[in-house]
Amino acid sequence: MSTTDEKTGTYSFVAEPFHVDFNGRVTLGVLGNHLLNCAGFHASDRGFGIATMNEENYTWVLSRLAIELDAYPVQYEDFSIRTWVENVYRLFTDRNFAILNQEGRPIGYARSVWAMINLNTRRPTDLLALHDGNITGYICDEPCPIEKPSRIKVEATEPVADHTARYSDIDINGHVNSIRYIEHILDLFPMELYREKRVRRFEMAYVAESYYGEKLLFFRDDAGGDEYHVEVRKETGEVVCRSKILFV
Amino acid sequence: MSTTDEKTGTYSFVAEPFHVDFNGRVTLGVLGNHLLNCAGFHASDRGFGIATMNEENYTWVLSRLAIELDAYPVQYEDFSIRTWVENVYRLFTDRNFAILNQEGRPIGYARSVWAMINLNTRRPTDLLALHDGNITGYICDEPCPIEKPSRIKVEATEPVADHTARYSDIDINGHVNSIRYIEHILDLFPMELYREKRVRRFEMAYVAESYYGEKLLFFRDDAGGDEYHVEVRKETGEVVCRSKILFV
Repeated sequence: MSTTDEKTGTYSFVAEPFHVDFNGRVTLGVLGNHLLNCAGFHASDRGFGIATMNEENYTWVLSRLAIELDAYPVQYEDFSIRTWVENVYRLFTDRNFAILNQEGRPIGYARSVWAMINLNTRRPTDLLALHDGNITGYICDEPCPIEKPSRIKVEATEPVADHTARYSDIDINGHVNSIRYIEHILDLFPMELYREKRVRRFEMAYVAESYYGEKLLFFRDDAGGDEYHVEVRKETGEVVCRSKILFV
Repeated sequence: MSTTDEKTGTYSFVAEPFHVDFNGRVTLGVLGNHLLNCAGFHASDRGFGIATMNEENYTWVLSRLAIELDAYPVQYEDFSIRTWVENVYRLFTDRNFAILNQEGRPIGYARSVWAMINLNTRRPTDLLALHDGNITGYICDEPCPIEKPSRIKVEATEPVADHTARYSDIDINGHVNSIRYIEHILDLFPMELYREKRVRRFEMAYVAESYYGEKLLFFRDDAGGDEYHVEVRKETGEVVCRSKILFV
């Protein structure tokens, strides 16, 4: 099921029938879920998992995610995800991923940026001070040949869609879950686009939490060259997250 | 990962963080997905899987699903699902499931009814004639102490919600996938209800397929005693599926 050395962890999956889109490709929501699970497995095997952190009154918060794929795992295909820590800064840590096809060859990569917050103050904590800086011992120089998450700016002033957060959107923390935003954003695009093209790169910047019953407004810029920028805002104007989607 | 004897198959899972609701309980959509996957594993290990059937120009169609739970697997909990064939009739087969907690004790059961159709004619085929009736050799008398799926009738004439099928709703067959209906139906109920109660029994009757861009209308009867009946119809009035939800 999983193999781990000291620094990297590799976890196996299969592309389940209800986890692929109409083209038979694993959806980015499902892939995102697997990536975040792998982050969890890898961290908890090393004493930095959410459960341990919660006991110490801290929790991990996902700040950014970028996924870039040359090819997608297809229905019933075995694939695996390898993950490692690239860097630890005072307030953020970079965790990378390789997505490997059934032959073990990379078909894509992902980058994520995490902060740790104190559950009482909700303020970020110093990662370098955590467990005496132990976490830096896991830094690994495995290559991740995709660009870092970029700055995303959306100019649109009229929403292209809205969605009121419902039961199935909400996670155990009472927030709209990180994966649901990916699904809602991908649902802004018509089937015709997915029929002819696929998402080559997908970026998310998580800015603020949203809650049950809140109305989310989706603003979209067409940046040309099959690139779109999306911003999700509350009715108050508060930004919840931003995304960049590149089709090829 | 899995253990199988000749007739039953048992498959292991863990309740992943993005697969639980705000109460930390595995969602019925995720559980339904696991049940259908187990059906697939069990059938394909015995030469009756979708892939084999497709090659022979047939496919399995889920007609009914009923899930009844005394308790739910909670976040990070290991659980397993055992499945077996209860009966094979000419046009339908009954497949049952037990949901086992991490100690291997049943916390719920499910029943499903399947037909097999010819991919060209879309008409049901005679299961008893399939592979020389070989499938009947897997019939198993394991107990499944929950009621069979019942007849569902909805009187409401005004929809309580609507949903236009989008990219993430559509499966590889080009239909709204069976699991999405479960999620959309559960989203008809307010968080307050899920805060105080949980779904004790959930039934689905799948009647017709729906497609990308189709508007689905949700009609709901309050049957009293925390029981609700839901019918999903197209704008033409065609019934897509019916559901019965009992909260406790």
